[in-house]
Amino acid sequence: ITTKLPAVGTTIFTVMSTLAAEKNAVNLGQGFPDFHCDPKLLEDVTAAMAAGHNQYPPMPGIPSLRDAIAAKIEALYGRSYSAATEITVTAGATQAIITAILAIVRPGDEVIVLEPCYDSYVPNIDLAGGKVVRVPLVPGTFRPDFDKIAAALTPKTRAIIINTPHNPSATVWTEAEMRQLEELLAPTDVFVISDEVYEHMVFDDARHESVARFPGLAARSFIVSSFGKTYHVTGWKVGFVAAPAPLMAEFRKVHQFNVFTVNTPMQHALAQYMARPEPYLELPAFYQRKRDLFAAGLAEKTRFKLLRSEGSYFQCVDISAVSDLSEADFCLWLTREIGVAAIPLSAFYGDGFDQRVVRFCFAKKDETLLAALDRLAKL
Amino acid sequence: ITTKLPAVGTTIFTVMSTLAAEKNAVNLGQGFPDFHCDPKLLEDVTAAMAAGHNQYPPMPGIPSLRDAIAAKIEALYGRSYSAATEITVTAGATQAIITAILAIVRPGDEVIVLEPCYDSYVPNIDLAGGKVVRVPLVPGTFRPDFDKIAAALTPKTRAIIINTPHNPSATVWTEAEMRQLEELLAPTDVFVISDEVYEHMVFDDARHESVARFPGLAARSFIVSSFGKTYHVTGWKVGFVAAPAPLMAEFRKVHQFNVFTVNTPMQHALAQYMARPEPYLELPAFYQRKRDLFAAGLAEKTRFKLLRSEGSYFQCVDISAVSDLSEADFCLWLTREIGVAAIPLSAFYGDGFDQRVVRFCFAKKDETLLAALDRLAKL
Ligand SMILES: CSCCC(=O)C(=O)O
Ligand SMILES: CSCCC(=O)C(=O)O
Repeated sequence: ITTKLPAVGTTIFTVMSTLAAEKNAVNLGQGFPDFHCDPKLLEDVTAAMAAGHNQYPPMPGIPSLRDAIAAKIEALYGRSYSAATEITVTAGATQAIITAILAIVRPGDEVIVLEPCYDSYVPNIDLAGGKVVRVPLVPGTFRPDFDKIAAALTPKTRAIIINTPHNPSATVWTEAEMRQLEELLAPTDVFVISDEVYEHMVFDDARHESVARFPGLAARSFIVSSFGKTYHVTGWKVGFVAAPAPLMAEFRKVHQFNVFTVNTPMQHALAQYMARPEPYLELPAFYQRKRDLFAAGLAEKTRFKLLRSEGSYFQCVDISAVSDLSEADFCLWLTREIGVAAIPLSAFYGDGFDQRVVRFCFAKKDETLLAALDRLAKL
Repeated sequence: ITTKLPAVGTTIFTVMSTLAAEKNAVNLGQGFPDFHCDPKLLEDVTAAMAAGHNQYPPMPGIPSLRDAIAAKIEALYGRSYSAATEITVTAGATQAIITAILAIVRPGDEVIVLEPCYDSYVPNIDLAGGKVVRVPLVPGTFRPDFDKIAAALTPKTRAIIINTPHNPSATVWTEAEMRQLEELLAPTDVFVISDEVYEHMVFDDARHESVARFPGLAARSFIVSSFGKTYHVTGWKVGFVAAPAPLMAEFRKVHQFNVFTVNTPMQHALAQYMARPEPYLELPAFYQRKRDLFAAGLAEKTRFKLLRSEGSYFQCVDISAVSDLSEADFCLWLTREIGVAAIPLSAFYGDGFDQRVVRFCFAKKDETLLAALDRLAKL
């Protein structure tokens, strides 16, 4: 059988998590917490199941969860979305992104991605028959380069995918950058797919600039977020999309024939949970402390050069002073020989661009971070 | 925004379930049980969550669930699939089907569907850029018409989608029919997507003829099934696909960038549950009793002409003696005025072919079926 996706292998996250398990390495590769979620959330699932919520929910999600999502977006970002027609619950953010792409990208349409980027975007565009247009973020700083983005826009540009807080670089777009994007797209019909799964993890003086805050962007955007990241339950596979009604109508046409709908008990639990005082308000401080703990340890115990982590759950480091290996080989070696798994940034580039930077996930118990630091001290 | 799916509206199942809720009608439309699953299964979810199984599972599903699936297929249908490379857990059967289609159907490829068919197949093929080739089942009996299927095969045929036990007609393919398909496809490279979600609901002397039983078919087939249908938890959105390793490799390339993976606690619970004596063995008798109860009531209390229900959870009836309305109008009227929701078979045809047949779902509590019969007696 000839493949439709010749460039696709197993995702780097699967490769590294599998190797980490095999080698008993501390897994700072794949982005997921190794600590538990709030036990109340689990009780809410048990209660939902006991109440008989085990059959198909409404296709776009249960109304109470969509209401809670709309209320949250309005409270945090000041834009009102209709729970009835503008919010859809998805089987995680990955499914949200491919569904938006399949809904709007037609064969031959161009879609701009800003590299480095999450590894699902490009194969998603390929599957829709679209043409991937890769624009690099500024090397070294990972800031958006608006001249390059402007140069990439053509009459065939159908959409641009943005992501802030950014995976893997941990940068957070500023208000000025969002405004620049808004102005750049103003004369166009280009749609925006805005991957905001790390919306609640922003540090120091950074603020999450959702496209929802910028009317000129919001009107053309699919906002994608993830309950898995926000509530420490990445395995539940529940996320959501917010978009203006005409865009959401197209999104739902694909959604209903992709997954049809999303796990009922988890939806009830999340709705119940969001009716309580919102735990996501504590997330920035919670993760900032972990970032600081891990970064201080790296600075003290290793010769890695630390990049700035403004948001997300990642800390990137330059490995030049430590190793001559390629990023990918270094990560394999680090997992096998030192017992700490990391992700090479080259995995986020179509051409495997290697800038001697690797990514660590610090969404881990303090003891896990300390164990990793102990091992890294051997470098 | 111009739509990529001009023919797609809201699914008939959503339309009828919404109307049924609004009108307080007995909902025999959408296919889902209104009774509870085994409480042990819910306890297994609670235990899995308490054990900390709330983060990303392996991309193709947790090993113990894949082992259980492989063991079941081998026990029931005599073919051995490798849990490592030939089984993948999906976010329900709908996601399994679109993923198989996106994995193998290239722009311009032809895909044969046998009408009437489940409403996701056609838009799924459209999204892959394939050409839908509609072949009718024999009118009246809904048996496969192998002359027509043979005539539809061309060098461009990439796949055929089959479905037994069949939704909506409730026929079950015979061993002879499966052999005919096997022979017909033998000289070709055509893939088979075999929708077997009702595999455990077969009645009287019928037997479920999985493609797994037929080596010539199994070698070219994606078998799709659903834990939601089997264990009365349609809202959990967990299903699976079995396929030979080279096909599964392509499937997983798309799967990992569609949903990436599937709800962790539900996977653990299902694996745990399948390690117990298998409750699906009781399903045929359980549903046959419901079919008989409902069919006897219809025969006694209405002038509907009953079609034979050999499997699935559906009973189809000819409405000619009762109404002159189109199937669709009849279903709307029946929901609004009589208080019982049903699904028009025309919804399963691209051209809306109307043969005066509607579908009732009898996967309901006896009291629900009796309440529906009371209302239908007013006809
Ligand atoms: C879906 S697996 C990858 C998790 C993640 O977001 C990351 O590690 O980048
Ligand atoms: C996914 S909603 C439809 C359920 C079903 O299988 C049917 O009613 O045919």
